[in-house]
Amino acid sequence: MGCAPMGHILYDEVMKYNPKNPYWFNRDRFVLSAGHGCMLQYALLHLAGYDSVQEDDLKSFRQWGSKIPGHPENFETPGVEVTTGPLGQGIANAVGLAVAEKHLAARFNKPDAEIVDHYTYVILGDGCQMEGISNEACSLAGHWGLGKLIAFYDDNHISIDGDTEIAFTEDVSARFEALGWHVIWVKNGNTGYDEIRAAIKEAKSVKDKPTMIKVTTTIGFGSPNKANSYSVHGSALGAKEVEATRNNLGWPYEPFHVPEDVKSHWSRHTPEGAALETEWNAKFAEYEKKYAEEAADLKSIITGELPAGWEKALPTYTPESPADATRNLSQQNLNALAKVVPGFLGGSADLASSNMTLLKMFGDFQKNTPEERNLRFGVREHGMGAICNGIALHSLGLIPYCATFFVFTDYMRGAMRISALSEAGVIYVMTHDSIGLGEDGPTHQPIEHLASFRAMPNILMFRPADGNETAGAYKVAVLKRKTPSILALSRQKLPQLAGTSIEGAAKGGYIVSDNSSGNKPDVILIGTGSELEIAVKAAEELKKEGKTVRVVSFVCWELYDEQSAEYKESVLPSSVTARVSIEAGSTFGWQKFVGDKGKAIGVDGFGASAPADKIYKEFGITAEAVVAAAKQVS
Amino acid sequence: MGCAPMGHILYDEVMKYNPKNPYWFNRDRFVLSAGHGCMLQYALLHLAGYDSVQEDDLKSFRQWGSKIPGHPENFETPGVEVTTGPLGQGIANAVGLAVAEKHLAARFNKPDAEIVDHYTYVILGDGCQMEGISNEACSLAGHWGLGKLIAFYDDNHISIDGDTEIAFTEDVSARFEALGWHVIWVKNGNTGYDEIRAAIKEAKSVKDKPTMIKVTTTIGFGSPNKANSYSVHGSALGAKEVEATRNNLGWPYEPFHVPEDVKSHWSRHTPEGAALETEWNAKFAEYEKKYAEEAADLKSIITGELPAGWEKALPTYTPESPADATRNLSQQNLNALAKVVPGFLGGSADLASSNMTLLKMFGDFQKNTPEERNLRFGVREHGMGAICNGIALHSLGLIPYCATFFVFTDYMRGAMRISALSEAGVIYVMTHDSIGLGEDGPTHQPIEHLASFRAMPNILMFRPADGNETAGAYKVAVLKRKTPSILALSRQKLPQLAGTSIEGAAKGGYIVSDNSSGNKPDVILIGTGSELEIAVKAAEELKKEGKTVRVVSFVCWELYDEQSAEYKESVLPSSVTARVSIEAGSTFGWQKFVGDKGKAIGVDGFGASAPADKIYKEFGITAEAVVAAAKQVS
Repeated sequence: MGCAPMGHILYDEVMKYNPKNPYWFNRDRFVLSAGHGCMLQYALLHLAGYDSVQEDDLKSFRQWGSKIPGHPENFETPGVEVTTGPLGQGIANAVGLAVAEKHLAARFNKPDAEIVDHYTYVILGDGCQMEGISNEACSLAGHWGLGKLIAFYDDNHISIDGDTEIAFTEDVSARFEALGWHVIWVKNGNTGYDEIRAAIKEAKSVKDKPTMIKVTTTIGFGSPNKANSYSVHGSALGAKEVEATRNNLGWPYEPFHVPEDVKSHWSRHTPEGAALETEWNAKFAEYEKKYAEEAADLKSIITGELPAGWEKALPTYTPESPADATRNLSQQNLNALAKVVPGFLGGSADLASSNMTLLKMFGDFQKNTPEERNLRFGVREHGMGAICNGIALHSLGLIPYCATFFVFTDYMRGAMRISALSEAGVIYVMTHDSIGLGEDGPTHQPIEHLASFRAMPNILMFRPADGNETAGAYKVAVLKRKTPSILALSRQKLPQLAGTSIEGAAKGGYIVSDNSSGNKPDVILIGTGSELEIAVKAAEELKKEGKTVRVVSFVCWELYDEQSAEYKESVLPSSVTARVSIEAGSTFGWQKFVGDKGKAIGVDGFGASAPADKIYKEFGITAEAVVAAAKQVS
Repeated sequence: MGCAPMGHILYDEVMKYNPKNPYWFNRDRFVLSAGHGCMLQYALLHLAGYDSVQEDDLKSFRQWGSKIPGHPENFETPGVEVTTGPLGQGIANAVGLAVAEKHLAARFNKPDAEIVDHYTYVILGDGCQMEGISNEACSLAGHWGLGKLIAFYDDNHISIDGDTEIAFTEDVSARFEALGWHVIWVKNGNTGYDEIRAAIKEAKSVKDKPTMIKVTTTIGFGSPNKANSYSVHGSALGAKEVEATRNNLGWPYEPFHVPEDVKSHWSRHTPEGAALETEWNAKFAEYEKKYAEEAADLKSIITGELPAGWEKALPTYTPESPADATRNLSQQNLNALAKVVPGFLGGSADLASSNMTLLKMFGDFQKNTPEERNLRFGVREHGMGAICNGIALHSLGLIPYCATFFVFTDYMRGAMRISALSEAGVIYVMTHDSIGLGEDGPTHQPIEHLASFRAMPNILMFRPADGNETAGAYKVAVLKRKTPSILALSRQKLPQLAGTSIEGAAKGGYIVSDNSSGNKPDVILIGTGSELEIAVKAAEELKKEGKTVRVVSFVCWELYDEQSAEYKESVLPSSVTARVSIEAGSTFGWQKFVGDKGKAIGVDGFGASAPADKIYKEFGITAEAVVAAAKQVS
C-alpha cells in the first residue's frame, strides 16, 4: 500500500500517544481521511499495542460484530479519532482537531507550563481533494494559520474510476499555496522514508501555516500485477496476487503473523506511552497548584464534566416577558452558557448577525487571537459542520455550536449525519426556520427539513416555540454529549406562551394547556415552534364555542419517543382521535401523532417570496384553518 | 451597486439575446450567482425589453404574486436562466450551461454551419467563492477547458458578516490559475468600463480555458454613507440614503423612471434580438436541408419533443429473466435510452463502475472529445448535481443523469433541492440504496434518505424492485421534464418478480399479487425495492396457512398520491386495516399507508459493517418478521 510508509513513520517514530489509554488528552491526533486505507490503520494500531485491535479482530475485518468495520469509526475502535469514509470529512475533522488544540493551547498554556501541545496529522487522497468540503476546510486552515496541522496528500493518481487524468488535472499544490498552506513534495513516497522524515521536520519548522506534504505513491505498491490500478482501491487482491505480492516483497510469514523482531521493535510504545502520560500528569499537577481556576476549566474540558449548577444560568421567561424571535432568545442562551461552560464555543457561516450567534464577551478566534471563542466560518457550511465534529471529538467537554439558515443544512448534511453517527454532540443553531422568513423566498424557505432530520437516527430535532422552550432545548443539547442537536429557530417575533417550560421541552412533547378533565378533551391541537401560538389561538376560539381543548407542544419528537407509554398516554390519550397538528413545514410523518382520523396542517409545496404574514395567510397556516380542521375531526 | 458596470456592459454591448423570445436557443446565457444582486438583473431585463419585467413588476419586488422574487428564479421570471440565491449554485449551473454548449457545438456544428455558438457569463461574489461547490465545479470547468465560460468575480471584499478579512484571505486568483483557468484582474470595477470591455475581449481570445475576471468593486458604490459596508448586502438603503445616493450620482429622476434617452438607447435590443433569431432560423433551415438527421436530433434537444416510439426501447422482463441488481438493470435502461433519446447524457461522481452508469456506445466527454456523452465528474457530488441542473435548463430536450451512492445525496442535497424548485428534470441514479450494500458499513448505508426525499416537494423518489419497475421508473423520469427523479437502486441481486410492470410502476403503488376476492384480503403486505421480494415470500407463507394476502409495491409515493381516490381505494381499501410494510430504511412516514392499526418494519438506527444477508437477518428485515407482524395486525 502506497501510504504505508507515512503511516508507519507516524505511528512508529513521530506521534505522541499512549496505546493503553487511547483517549489521553495531550496525544497527537491522527485522521485517515482516505477511509479505504483503514486496514493499514488497524494494523498499525495493532502493532502499536492498542488493545482495541487484537489479531482476532484483524481477521474479522468487515464482519458482523467486528471492532474493525469497513471504514474507520471512532465509536467502534478506540484509537480511531473520528469517523471517515465519506470523502473529505476526515481532512475537515483534522482542521477541527487542530482548531481545538490551537484554542486550548492559547487559553491554557502559561510561560512556565505548556500543558496543551500536540500535532494533528491527516492522510488524504485524491478523492478527498476533489470534494468541495476539503477546499472549504483547508481555506479556513490557511486563514487561521494552523501551524500544527500536517496533511499528507497520498498522490497515487488513481481513484475508483481509474486514472485521475480523466477528471482531476488541477495543480493541487498550487491550490494549497493559494489557500495559505506551506507545501512540500515527496516524490518517492513508496520507499522514500528519509524524504518523508525530512518533510515532517520541515513541516514542524513552519509554525504559522498548515503544511501539505504531497507524497507521490503507487497504489497497491508491491503487488506485481495490480499496483497502480484502480482494482486495488476497494477490492481485495485475491489469493494469487497476495502470494505474488508476498514473494515480490520478500515476506515469507503466515497471514497475520507478526515476526518477533517487529513485535519487539514496536513493543516500546506501551512503556513509552505510559511514560508520556505520567510525565504530563505530573506537569498538570504542577499547573493545577499554580493556576487553580484555569486547571478547573481545562479539567472540565478534558473530562466533559460540567461545572456544578451550570443549568441555573439558563434564562427563564413568563408570559409577560417581551415577544421575541427564537433566534434572539437563542442568543441569550448561547451567551448565558458561554459564561458558565468552559468548553462552549462556535459561530456561523457568515450569518452571525442573522443567526444571532455572537458571544458578546468574547472576540474572534483568529490566527493571532486563538484564545477567543467566536468562530468565523465564512460561507462554508459543510466544512463548518465537519470542523465542529473535529472540535467535539477532540475533548469531551468541548461543545461546539455552528449556525446558518435552516434551509442550508442541505449544504452540510454530510457532516451532520457524521455528527449523529460518530456521536459528536455538536449543536446546530438553524435560524429562519420556515416560510416565516418571508421575502427571501423559496430558495431560502425550509419545507421538508424538519421531517428529513426527524427521520435521521441519533440527532435531536428541536423546534422551540418561545423562550422557555429554547432554554429547554439548550439544556438537553448541552447534556447530550453523544447526540447532536438541531435547533430550528424563527426569524420572526413570537410571544412568550403560558404553560411552556424547560421541563416540558425536555420531554419532547407535553401539554401546554387544557380545559378538559379526565384526560378526555374534545380535541387535541398540536403545534411546534412558531405555530404553537397559532394552536393556542385556535384553542381559545374553540373554547369560546364550548369545546374542551388540549394544546400540546411537540418541540422534539425524538425525546417524546423516549418517554414511557404511560406518559405518552397522558399526553395523547388513545381514546381521543380528534387531533389536529399545525406546523409551517411538510406534513410528512405527522400521521404518526394525529392518527388516521386526525388532520395535519402544513406546507407541502415550496414557499414564496412575500412578507411572512401574507405567506401564512395564503398558505392557510392560520388559527381559522385549525378551528375548521378541529371541527371536521371532532 | 458595484457589479452594475459588468451587468450593464453584458446586457447592452456583449450578449446575444432576443428579449421577445427569452428562450431562443442560441442566446448567450447569463447567470447571477450572487443572488442578492437580483434587482440589478431585473432592472437590466426591464431595460432590455423583456416583457417579463414591467415597471409595475419592479415596484412589486419581493411581494406576493410578484414576477420578481427575492432571489432569481427561472420559473418565475422569463429571462432568468437558473435559480440562484443559495451560494455557489449559480457558478456551478454556469459550468453546466457551458458544458451543454460545448457538447452540442461539437456534436452538431459542421465546417459549413456553426449552428451552436454562444457564451455563458456568470457574476459571482465572495460568498460563492467560499462555497465548496464552486471549487468543485470550477475544477471541472478547468479540466474540461470550457473556453466559452466567462466568470466575473465581484471582488467587493464584503460579505454578510463584514470584511472578508475575517474569514476569507486566500488568493482566489492563484487558486483559479491552479484550477486551469485564465485569470484577469480589473482593478477599478466601479467605473472602469473600458477595462471591463478589454477583459471580456481578452477572455474571448483564450479558447482553451475558462476565464475568471476578478473585478474589484465597492459594494453599494455611489451611496455616500453605506458604500463598502455589509449593511447594503441584504437590506434596503433607506429613504434618506437613497436620496443621498441620488444626489451623489447626479440622478434627478423619480423612482423607477427611465429617462427617454436611456429608453431610446436600450430600445434597439428588441429589433436586434429579433434579427439575430431570424438570421439563426435561416441558418438552421439551411442546415436542416443538408444534415437532416442531425437537424432532427438537435430539434428534439431544443424543443424537448421526444422521438416517436422512444419508450419502446425500454427493456422488459419476465419472472424467468435472470436475477440481477437493479443498478445493473438501470444500466440496461440508460444504454437503451441513450440510443433513442438524442439529449440523454450523464455520468457518475467517480463511481461509474459501481453505479453502472457508463453508456457503452459513447466515449468520455473531455476537453478534446466534447461530442461524447459520458461525463466524468470526479468525487464532486454537489458540483455534479448543479452542473446537471445547468445542462437540463440549457435546453428542454437535454436529459442529464448523474450518479453516486444513495447515502451521498447528503453531499448534493443543495443542488437536488434546486432541481426540484427550478423544475430541472435531472435523473439521479443512486445505487447502494440500503444496508444491503453490506461491508462498507454505516457511513455508506442510507437509512433516512428515502423519507427525506419523500418529504421534499416536486421530486420523485423511486425505489424499483426489479427490471420492469426500473424501466417504469425511467419511463416516468424521462417524461417528467419539470420534475427531477431519484432512483434508489440495489447493489445486491434481486429476482424478477411476477406481477411487476412498467404501467404499475408509473402509478407509484399497485397490486403485485392477491389471492383474495372482493377487494378484501385478510392482510396487505407493502414492500419497496429489494424488500418487495421479502413481502412476496411472506405472502407465500401466509397463504400456506390459509390467509388471503395482497402484495402491494410502493415504488414511488409521490406518483401514488397523484392517483384518484377510487384507484387508491382499489389498492389500499379503507376497510382493510391489517397492513404491514417492509423497507430497509427508516419507518418514518410509513404510518400514512399502514395506518393506526398496521405495522411498519424497517431500520431506524444506523447500519453495520458485515455481509448483507447477515445484516438483514440481524436487523429483522426478513419474511419471518413480516409473517409475525401480519399475524399481529390481522
